[in-house]
Amino acid sequence: MVKYPLIALMTDFGEDDFFVASLKGVIAKINPSARIIDITHRLPSFDIKAGSFILFSSFKYFPARTIFLVVVDPGVGTSRNIVLAETENYFFIAPDNGVLSLVLEEESIKQLREVTNQNYFLPELSRTFEGRDKMAPVAAWLSRGISCEEFGPETTSYKKSNAEKPQIKRDEIIGHILYIDKFGNLITNIPERMLELLQKKTGKKTLSLSINDREITSFEQSYSFVKKGELLFLIGSLGLIEIAAKESSAAQKLKIKNGDKCKIIVRN
Amino acid sequence: MVKYPLIALMTDFGEDDFFVASLKGVIAKINPSARIIDITHRLPSFDIKAGSFILFSSFKYFPARTIFLVVVDPGVGTSRNIVLAETENYFFIAPDNGVLSLVLEEESIKQLREVTNQNYFLPELSRTFEGRDKMAPVAAWLSRGISCEEFGPETTSYKKSNAEKPQIKRDEIIGHILYIDKFGNLITNIPERMLELLQKKTGKKTLSLSINDREITSFEQSYSFVKKGELLFLIGSLGLIEIAAKESSAAQKLKIKNGDKCKIIVRN
Amino acid sequence: MVKYPLIALMTDFGEDDFFVASLKGVIAKINPSARIIDITHRLPSFDIKAGSFILFSSFKYFPARTIFLVVVDPGVGTSRNIVLAETENYFFIAPDNGVLSLVLEEESIKQLREVTNQNYFLPELSRTFEGRDKMAPVAAWLSRGISCEEFGPETTSYKKSNAEKPQIKRDEIIGHILYIDKFGNLITNIPERMLELLQKKTGKKTLSLSINDREITSFEQSYSFVKKGELLFLIGSLGLIEIAAKESSAAQKLKIKNGDKCKIIVRN
Repeated sequence: MVKYPLIALMTDFGEDDFFVASLKGVIAKINPSARIIDITHRLPSFDIKAGSFILFSSFKYFPARTIFLVVVDPGVGTSRNIVLAETENYFFIAPDNGVLSLVLEEESIKQLREVTNQNYFLPELSRTFEGRDKMAPVAAWLSRGISCEEFGPETTSYKKSNAEKPQIKRDEIIGHILYIDKFGNLITNIPERMLELLQKKTGKKTLSLSINDREITSFEQSYSFVKKGELLFLIGSLGLIEIAAKESSAAQKLKIKNGDKCKIIVRN
Repeated sequence: MVKYPLIALMTDFGEDDFFVASLKGVIAKINPSARIIDITHRLPSFDIKAGSFILFSSFKYFPARTIFLVVVDPGVGTSRNIVLAETENYFFIAPDNGVLSLVLEEESIKQLREVTNQNYFLPELSRTFEGRDKMAPVAAWLSRGISCEEFGPETTSYKKSNAEKPQIKRDEIIGHILYIDKFGNLITNIPERMLELLQKKTGKKTLSLSINDREITSFEQSYSFVKKGELLFLIGSLGLIEIAAKESSAAQKLKIKNGDKCKIIVRN
Repeated sequence: MVKYPLIALMTDFGEDDFFVASLKGVIAKINPSARIIDITHRLPSFDIKAGSFILFSSFKYFPARTIFLVVVDPGVGTSRNIVLAETENYFFIAPDNGVLSLVLEEESIKQLREVTNQNYFLPELSRTFEGRDKMAPVAAWLSRGISCEEFGPETTSYKKSNAEKPQIKRDEIIGHILYIDKFGNLITNIPERMLELLQKKTGKKTLSLSINDREITSFEQSYSFVKKGELLFLIGSLGLIEIAAKESSAAQKLKIKNGDKCKIIVRN
């Protein structure tokens, strides 16, 4: 038996309906001692990119051997696969639609399986809710110690994202907005270490951030180092450059949406 | 002692306030080893029909002996009863206002109790929050193995819903929209088996669905078998006919609300 | 080892993002046997008053030794302290910004600590997410039985609220709206016992409530004792005077917001 089995759930099901409850019921029925932690169920419907980012932002804080069950599944009922990935530290189960791309780039993959073994599915299968009928039972059986090999044949590839990486061009880093959080903070795809790289490469020091024809010059350690409502940029809690406004929404102030471009500029 | 006691909670309390936390605190105080699973707390305020449907849609996926604690209670503080139902598989505790009607029609009832025994209530009773003061403690004591008989006298009836059943008339099944889910899918009250019945009875085969002066002819196995945004109907994950639009909201496209009529038509 | 360790979480993080999941992951990693109950994560961003009230409204229902982890933290990354309070019954961890003021006024304080011991923080610290990096790990270690003394030096004061108390003036009690709940009920800061006090002091009996130039005369035991939509006032489930409208929103009817004045009037 696995000690302290933990399943972390992330879906775009919302919390109004019967979807999440069904997943949890299925899990509790198969493994009553599995603990369940909700990552979120409030992903925008069908938003694989947002799912990929939220998972990436939180998975490392979970205990080793956590089973991540991710259901954002616009292709349910088609021939898209269900993938089970075992990495050095974790297990991931999801439709093979790119939602695991960011975490699997970070983790060292031990094996990938195509989930096909009907013995671990519910006896009655619907065509529109494979999260409940296939993925949740597989997560629950896995949490009971069934080995990955059991669930289906090995596979070598999974769907990757085609997200653009940030790039250094002369005195600038060109990036974009990955995610807008609840506070209206704009999380970019530019990691902290690229700032030092830019400074080293150019021999210049003073950083500013340009977005939507506006230049932000306050580069601070935390939100509270400017006046209420003022814009700043900083190194966020994920190690990524973030644009914020003290006790206010930078997204609203700047009228920004996901995917919008931004750049870091270095000067003397 | 009950092994793996599980209490599933459903309310219209929302998640902003102190209501749900109080229920959970009360339960944890009485039975620290009870696990709690949230079905939803986001039922529209006082919406007994929605509660009845969500419970019906998810309860079967839970382990045997799960205790369902349902608090949608517009009549709190009046003479309405609190009912405890033991069925073949489960326990249900709720105000006797019809919210259990759909599940109790499905389940084989072993006993019904009127919950009256003050020994299992909190010592201080408010007049406006019996979920916290009476129902949650009763659920928690039940999860510790106290037998149903203890909580109050037997009763023989519970409040039933007066929901209209779908009907076959000549070449049509007349039904209505039971529930609109988060994705904008319209779940009807027409079960899968009525389609076959209609086809057998009429000797005709081709099915279409008519709603709000519009006829939908794509009857598919899952959402993805039409073009993005296109309307279809299908057998949903509950075995009920469902109207959907691929990666889009059928409810918005069709301007439909709960209770609106729809019909299935069969032709040669 | 602590038996049944329980951590109750309250934040303004919302449920859309990676914030809450990160806290829970951190806790599960340090103490896999800690149970976690969510109070709410839907406090309005940075709203210390709302947090203080919600905590106050629910904490007493939790089992003794519950650890309350409260993260509403507009001052994150500045010199504001993190406080750990042990009271007769509970533990509280929060930024020292007043969010604990209402509960600490109620509870008998055994010790207050300034949380500073880096040994109990995550090894890598961000400047913008001390909930994850400092407070959650401290809560988890505390739930494993580490004693309060370990986490930092004793302190004697904590930030108090400057909330106005209700006052009796001649034939009136002057109070204000503390909180508007999900149903639109208006919870005042006037406790039940002040009504009796007012009646005794004046020798008069008939109570009414005045708010926003409107006088409400129905003083009832529960919501259902008036007609649908009608206004009433009553003693709410927290022992505080509450204004409600049957199966309707008093807040909308009266166009009231938090902090608005109200008064109880007594007549012959």
